[in-house]
Amino acid sequence: MTRVAILGATGYSALELIKLLLRHPQAEITTVTSRQEGSPPIAMVHPSLTGRLDLRLEDLGPVAVAGRADCVFSCLPHGVTTTLVPHLLSAGARVIDFSADYRLRDPEAYAQWYGQKHGDPEHLPTAVYGLPELFREQIAPARLIANPGCYPTSAILALAPLLKAGAIEPTDIIVDSKSGVSGAGRTPKLTTHYPECNESVSAYNIGRHRHTPEIDQVLSTASGAAVNVIFTPHLIPMDRGILTTAYSRPKPGMTEEKLLDTLRDFYADEPFVRVVDHLPGTKDSAGTNYCDITARLVRDRVITISCLDNLIKGAAGAAVQNFNVMHGYAETTGL
Amino acid sequence: MTRVAILGATGYSALELIKLLLRHPQAEITTVTSRQEGSPPIAMVHPSLTGRLDLRLEDLGPVAVAGRADCVFSCLPHGVTTTLVPHLLSAGARVIDFSADYRLRDPEAYAQWYGQKHGDPEHLPTAVYGLPELFREQIAPARLIANPGCYPTSAILALAPLLKAGAIEPTDIIVDSKSGVSGAGRTPKLTTHYPECNESVSAYNIGRHRHTPEIDQVLSTASGAAVNVIFTPHLIPMDRGILTTAYSRPKPGMTEEKLLDTLRDFYADEPFVRVVDHLPGTKDSAGTNYCDITARLVRDRVITISCLDNLIKGAAGAAVQNFNVMHGYAETTGL
Amino acid sequence: MTRVAILGATGYSALELIKLLLRHPQAEITTVTSRQEGSPPIAMVHPSLTGRLDLRLEDLGPVAVAGRADCVFSCLPHGVTTTLVPHLLSAGARVIDFSADYRLRDPEAYAQWYGQKHGDPEHLPTAVYGLPELFREQIAPARLIANPGCYPTSAILALAPLLKAGAIEPTDIIVDSKSGVSGAGRTPKLTTHYPECNESVSAYNIGRHRHTPEIDQVLSTASGAAVNVIFTPHLIPMDRGILTTAYSRPKPGMTEEKLLDTLRDFYADEPFVRVVDHLPGTKDSAGTNYCDITARLVRDRVITISCLDNLIKGAAGAAVQNFNVMHGYAETTGL
Amino acid sequence: MTRVAILGATGYSALELIKLLLRHPQAEITTVTSRQEGSPPIAMVHPSLTGRLDLRLEDLGPVAVAGRADCVFSCLPHGVTTTLVPHLLSAGARVIDFSADYRLRDPEAYAQWYGQKHGDPEHLPTAVYGLPELFREQIAPARLIANPGCYPTSAILALAPLLKAGAIEPTDIIVDSKSGVSGAGRTPKLTTHYPECNESVSAYNIGRHRHTPEIDQVLSTASGAAVNVIFTPHLIPMDRGILTTAYSRPKPGMTEEKLLDTLRDFYADEPFVRVVDHLPGTKDSAGTNYCDITARLVRDRVITISCLDNLIKGAAGAAVQNFNVMHGYAETTGL
Repeated sequence: MTRVAILGATGYSALELIKLLLRHPQAEITTVTSRQEGSPPIAMVHPSLTGRLDLRLEDLGPVAVAGRADCVFSCLPHGVTTTLVPHLLSAGARVIDFSADYRLRDPEAYAQWYGQKHGDPEHLPTAVYGLPELFREQIAPARLIANPGCYPTSAILALAPLLKAGAIEPTDIIVDSKSGVSGAGRTPKLTTHYPECNESVSAYNIGRHRHTPEIDQVLSTASGAAVNVIFTPHLIPMDRGILTTAYSRPKPGMTEEKLLDTLRDFYADEPFVRVVDHLPGTKDSAGTNYCDITARLVRDRVITISCLDNLIKGAAGAAVQNFNVMHGYAETTGL
Repeated sequence: MTRVAILGATGYSALELIKLLLRHPQAEITTVTSRQEGSPPIAMVHPSLTGRLDLRLEDLGPVAVAGRADCVFSCLPHGVTTTLVPHLLSAGARVIDFSADYRLRDPEAYAQWYGQKHGDPEHLPTAVYGLPELFREQIAPARLIANPGCYPTSAILALAPLLKAGAIEPTDIIVDSKSGVSGAGRTPKLTTHYPECNESVSAYNIGRHRHTPEIDQVLSTASGAAVNVIFTPHLIPMDRGILTTAYSRPKPGMTEEKLLDTLRDFYADEPFVRVVDHLPGTKDSAGTNYCDITARLVRDRVITISCLDNLIKGAAGAAVQNFNVMHGYAETTGL
Repeated sequence: MTRVAILGATGYSALELIKLLLRHPQAEITTVTSRQEGSPPIAMVHPSLTGRLDLRLEDLGPVAVAGRADCVFSCLPHGVTTTLVPHLLSAGARVIDFSADYRLRDPEAYAQWYGQKHGDPEHLPTAVYGLPELFREQIAPARLIANPGCYPTSAILALAPLLKAGAIEPTDIIVDSKSGVSGAGRTPKLTTHYPECNESVSAYNIGRHRHTPEIDQVLSTASGAAVNVIFTPHLIPMDRGILTTAYSRPKPGMTEEKLLDTLRDFYADEPFVRVVDHLPGTKDSAGTNYCDITARLVRDRVITISCLDNLIKGAAGAAVQNFNVMHGYAETTGL
Repeated sequence: MTRVAILGATGYSALELIKLLLRHPQAEITTVTSRQEGSPPIAMVHPSLTGRLDLRLEDLGPVAVAGRADCVFSCLPHGVTTTLVPHLLSAGARVIDFSADYRLRDPEAYAQWYGQKHGDPEHLPTAVYGLPELFREQIAPARLIANPGCYPTSAILALAPLLKAGAIEPTDIIVDSKSGVSGAGRTPKLTTHYPECNESVSAYNIGRHRHTPEIDQVLSTASGAAVNVIFTPHLIPMDRGILTTAYSRPKPGMTEEKLLDTLRDFYADEPFVRVVDHLPGTKDSAGTNYCDITARLVRDRVITISCLDNLIKGAAGAAVQNFNVMHGYAETTGL
């Protein structure tokens, strides 16, 4: 049994994490934190937890949290996270961080894309990018996990095996992603006000979405050459789910069957990636930790399609998967 | 040609009103107001108006507005409205008010339901409730129109003819209404944040929704006896539309066919009420000024169903209909 | 470990049931049937089951099924079910039936509402209505369970405790229900074609929905007096969830707090009914086996609100709950 | 006044067309046809037309139709259309065809993509592709208009001006489109069954959607070089709207401002294309005949975004626009 705490427990990823952990036989949630006034029961903030988790939201410092938890899931915003992680680590806790603070290895890139100096350059090199399908061995012993972004997970799982195998070119990659609205968080804004985004599709943050350098970094590692994707996110009127349509160039002689075989071989032993022949919809993986992937060869382009639940495989499920790898539990426990 | 102004032009009812007035051959929109900083073009606030209305939002006082408009549509919140209307009227403008400020004839009832003293008891008695199907003759010469609430319109149009005709009892009426989210306005809140209200239905404000006394007042007038409805509004995951299911008791000897005939007779010459045999859906009247009504007799109860678009027949369309009646234009102009 | 079979496995309730049973440590799915040609893998019909259940849909007779399963979940249409159940029972299987065939105790009532003679009057008296909150003791030893309808579950759980306790009158009850579209099944029809029912609300089957006599029967048992509800179902543009707003008359002296206390007392030990103070939304219980209930007293009426997931607490979850009760497993197993 | 007929009036495009024509002061709908049994009133098939169009659906041959209409809007499926058009033309009617039958100039391409020999090669060369923004002069005198596909309109309006101006390369163009469900027509199918496509995004017909050669043909004409796009359509859970994200290569020295200026210049006098600075959503043009377009330059790629209502600018609105051009009415009449 591992005692866990969840920092910033009022958002959607945290809610999903709590629901997964409540089914996890080896995890005991001891602490949920937030800066909410008055320490309300968490079920007042998340009515779906009524009768399921009898804890109050507390406004606790990192040392107190570390005293109650062996593993801390941090769902705090970027920038804030780096102020707490050093204290959590030095107090002995292991940390799985949902923010972007420890994802980019280069603090300069962080400063450029996030508009602020990195707050914890000391621990940055020790963080492991928490995508088990690519970095399982480094995750197992890690003290600090940078839990991947939802869009990067969908893009990387579809493209990294093809780049690693030399099936596609590392240049000229376009990532066109479609996400449900929960990805935008729980703070009400005009763009996510129901009558604004319902019955509408729009692109946003073209050319400047912060998941771009994260995708580039991991795909560059996979390919061994610099990858610079064009990334276009779109907001879709649905609660959850990401579908990523990626366009890349095939290496000479490539066929659709070889592309699918490359993906099937790479994921043959993976419990949470399903390489499928049909064109998957996001609903097939909604509410699960699966990522569904397929590929097509059209004219001179490879088209890969990947689907996942942004709150699970794109956030909380990946975190639990990392938790399992880190603590030696069967990787599918609770998932 | 009548010059019109729209006060508080940033909300959904105002947007719908502008779209209707742009098609109206006898209305010229001269002024749109809001307290937005910097007088932005209205198309910056409502992108759908790009290329359709070349006006800026201005922060103007009532006298200045009345200098530019013969008829003023006020889409301001209740409470604020009563501070402006006296000035608009004395400056010679006619006013169609979307707020609730002039709907309840009794200022005590207003104080009780709205939690504040009525701000303009002087003009309150002169206001006419702007439901042309019931009060067309009073609307024509009126200087001040209280444009009806969306729920009340749906309930009153379904029940008033049956009460007037003595087809149903005035006691024991239940109004169960289902509304799209645009009825909650354009200010982002958690309850109308997409991932909160999408894929969910909930009731709200049970027993204390402010449309209750408005329904009671008009139905009491229609029946000649005190009507006190039970009113339960529900939030439905869709942009627009209200479906009201009302339950009442038939007078002895009543049949389903007589109920339908009573409704058909009452609305025989009405351009915007359609008494239908089938069970209507809100989509049938979405985007139009129609209200669809039918009735059923089940066991010992009359069930009336009425559907309308809350932003049109429930707000902006009714306002244009009133505008037409007031100015002697054909009642369907622009609708 | 109990071997289970699922008859008619291509629909939504069956899919949900399979997902629940895959998490159930004491259930082994051995057989899934359908009349689909060619015995396709079930994952071809339900892509979300890819990699999760490696079975083919078979067109098997009841004796063959009973040879492979100790407990049979039948998701077949009413009328068909009664042709199979006698054979399943005589071959030794226990049956949990999702259809309406064994819900009404009176075969005359069945003939009247379903338009056909009951096909198995011999076993009808032995069937137990599978609502554990009311009939747990009879469910435990039963060989044949009539799994409740989704609407009846929502209405009965809200009203039965108040009737039993004499808190409300047995007469004059109105049940106004709002359901997501999955309740209409998986066969494409115009009424459930996306562009028809999206962005629309409508009532249907007023006065003749077949869940009416089922609600009446169980509430009559609970109250000890004949209950004849007015039941109005509505179709809501969402996948799943039912919210039932029921109107009834309080007994003299009743208060809102007493109503809530009656509900709280009745469900004090129930794992899947949550009596809440706030007004619940269907999203709070979506994807779970919970039913959320609250009550209000407005003017002279009791308003009870109940929410549940029509595919889980309203179908597959209730079936698993019954399965647990029947087989002596902890009632919450797999739920 | 022009007498018009609508063939195949039971679908969504026809319904939208009827609503537009009802507002058109110069069009008189004399005839609506369908093979529906029993000649029902059209309002029985389209309840939203109750009280608005008092015609019955008739099963009429082309000569009879041409006797009642100067202009015939054909909303019949491809393949069927070519069996009727020769008769309509020889009987003196002008035809605006919503099907794909007369869009591809090359009958071989038609045979390849539509799997059947072209049924009317005689009139094929006389048909004009009905996109007024590109082919207004040929439309004016035409007897036979091939009304464009919805996806092609969105792609062509965004890309043709940039190709014509030499701002982008004609090679290496990717068109990633997102469409609402009404584009799939009104016949119920599993893929458009509400609980299947709601809360889900999926790609479909990758590499073989029949709008591909139509896009290629018009863009090739615009650029003067062969264009072969990669076209990926996606199904989005909303009623209506298409957003097309197109990726192309800039010519050397191109800037974002030059791209936008090229678009603005091209559409300076167009009433229905709005070149905008912000990223448009489909809701901005929903219910209108507008197409909103913008462009971005990211890394080495031009990204153009275009939005339109698939049933209006992508079908019925374009048809009315063509009708106006053909008959000398102001192009915006009724729109």
